[in-house]
Amino acid sequence: MSRIHNFSAGPAVLPLPVLQQASRDILEVQGTGLGILECSHRSAMFDEVIGGAISRLRSLLNLDDDQEVLFLHGGARTQFYQWPMNVLGGGRAAYLDTGNWARFAAEDAARYGQVDTLFSSQDTGYDRVPEQGSISVPSDALYLHYTSNNTVAGTQFDYVPDPGKSWLACDMSSDFLSRPVDGSKFDYLYAGAQKNVGPSGTTVVILRRRVLERCSEDLPRMLQYPVQVSKSSMLNTPCTFSIYVVSLVTKWIEERGGLGAIDAHNRAQAGKVYGAIDGSGFYSGKVSVGSRSLMNITFTTGDADLDTAFWKTAADEGISGLKGHRSVGGLRASIYNAQTDEAIDALVGFMAEFERRRG
Amino acid sequence: MSRIHNFSAGPAVLPLPVLQQASRDILEVQGTGLGILECSHRSAMFDEVIGGAISRLRSLLNLDDDQEVLFLHGGARTQFYQWPMNVLGGGRAAYLDTGNWARFAAEDAARYGQVDTLFSSQDTGYDRVPEQGSISVPSDALYLHYTSNNTVAGTQFDYVPDPGKSWLACDMSSDFLSRPVDGSKFDYLYAGAQKNVGPSGTTVVILRRRVLERCSEDLPRMLQYPVQVSKSSMLNTPCTFSIYVVSLVTKWIEERGGLGAIDAHNRAQAGKVYGAIDGSGFYSGKVSVGSRSLMNITFTTGDADLDTAFWKTAADEGISGLKGHRSVGGLRASIYNAQTDEAIDALVGFMAEFERRRG
Repeated sequence: MSRIHNFSAGPAVLPLPVLQQASRDILEVQGTGLGILECSHRSAMFDEVIGGAISRLRSLLNLDDDQEVLFLHGGARTQFYQWPMNVLGGGRAAYLDTGNWARFAAEDAARYGQVDTLFSSQDTGYDRVPEQGSISVPSDALYLHYTSNNTVAGTQFDYVPDPGKSWLACDMSSDFLSRPVDGSKFDYLYAGAQKNVGPSGTTVVILRRRVLERCSEDLPRMLQYPVQVSKSSMLNTPCTFSIYVVSLVTKWIEERGGLGAIDAHNRAQAGKVYGAIDGSGFYSGKVSVGSRSLMNITFTTGDADLDTAFWKTAADEGISGLKGHRSVGGLRASIYNAQTDEAIDALVGFMAEFERRRG
Repeated sequence: MSRIHNFSAGPAVLPLPVLQQASRDILEVQGTGLGILECSHRSAMFDEVIGGAISRLRSLLNLDDDQEVLFLHGGARTQFYQWPMNVLGGGRAAYLDTGNWARFAAEDAARYGQVDTLFSSQDTGYDRVPEQGSISVPSDALYLHYTSNNTVAGTQFDYVPDPGKSWLACDMSSDFLSRPVDGSKFDYLYAGAQKNVGPSGTTVVILRRRVLERCSEDLPRMLQYPVQVSKSSMLNTPCTFSIYVVSLVTKWIEERGGLGAIDAHNRAQAGKVYGAIDGSGFYSGKVSVGSRSLMNITFTTGDADLDTAFWKTAADEGISGLKGHRSVGGLRASIYNAQTDEAIDALVGFMAEFERRRG
């Protein structure tokens, strides 16, 4: 086995001990005589897997007793419509347009009610998120929806917006469990697993009970949140393997010391890469400094051909996934929780070397 | 590693060589230096995985050039509504009510048009499917929908129904790729992976182009089939690992000699178990003989307590998953493609031994 340095935006690098455990458990898990892929979702073994994952999520996120944790199909993008379809019912909702995914969420919501876009940085290439305190949510908005980290642009909220009297709804897909967050502030919080907490295939959805009371019953049962709650995410067969890996990753986070320790690690890594960008006259960051993401670091040489040479040469040297999102170009280093210090050092070293060669 | 005999209805037993390959590839796949869970769905490696899976599905199912193969989120149960939501538009559709899942599909369809139930065996405990030639599809039905194998009851169509001039739509989740089927007869065919072809998390959806032309554009983009086709199932991140296992399982099927060889193997195994039932005065099958499933064999001792003793004792002796579905009780042995001859022999031996002890 020879693993390279992986800066992919997702599916992304996972902790090696988690992979080693998963690799073993595919052949036989927990002395059951069955592989994890082959276990019924209704078995005692799987009850323990999903129960453990939920319990650790509750603890890591400081959830209240009236918040429910689900594992649903379809990725965050399914939540873009499932949420307004359940709760909006022709009413008003406030959205912050801080990136492609935030915009797609608002577009889907507009099918089910009126969307007020309180902030947009689309005109400046999604180079920033709103400053703390600059947003005022209309009193008749049912909820405020925002995207805590914008994977494509490389921006991130370093605060939790104040929704006023409205509900707080958040797509936390790309910085989920990357830092301490008071989950009890949220009425609705969701995250596709494939960035910080697992492979693709499952979406963590957290809902407060007052939300459940408002959900439409005039929907197919698969789409009704209260049905999914009453069936413990098992109205049909959930994506058992992805949930199982989330279970292992949440254990790994606890073993690393919890979200405080994870955050310190992530900040140190991001600091090294941003330091390499800012310390050179060759590279520049693509977003406003105050909005910089600790997860997805976007930068450029300022020359599209040189950017291409950068990520291609890096890939040849065992540093992969540095090509910017196809919609914006440039370069991007995704450094989720499981990113290794060796990879960061290799990237920073490569940046210096590439500048010497081509700068 | 000590693997037991697994008769679970799904997620279910998978081929050992596939598991061994997956176990290795979680640490590093195809010399890429990345684990399969960590690879971008937009990488060249994954293009090859999904492309290979589609190509083998096309060949195994004899698909026409105008049929598209998708891998979607949400399980077969998501198809129950996604399909009529796309195509029905208030029109009429014909359904065959041969089991719980068939009924749920019809219930979801009734939201989007008029459902004609041409056949139902609900009153007799879903103990049969209609006889060949007994169904006549009304000329104004857009499509005929049926469920080729009924996992809970243990029945199966041993023929492909004639839809007349209507489209043919089939939920093939629990006998997908278990026998030769002329896929070119179908306008819409879907199957959750977690029975015969992989772990849970992805659904194979096959659609003919004339269907795509009729799909509603007034839906969230995630739900629009033509959008999923134009994005090659990657409007968002698909369940990469499950697709990867489907890719391995389709390869394994080809290596075993294709669907003809798989079918012969499945028939031999089912024959042994049905033979053990019919040859005893102690066990009896739960469904009409002409409708018996080759995938899910349902039977009973005729005594609920004795049935419970049967599956519990069997589990203690390393033969697991024999409890009937919670909605119907009794016993069920699921013997999908990857079921081993050793497991069948162990089951048949246990049946005789249990009869001696308790009969």
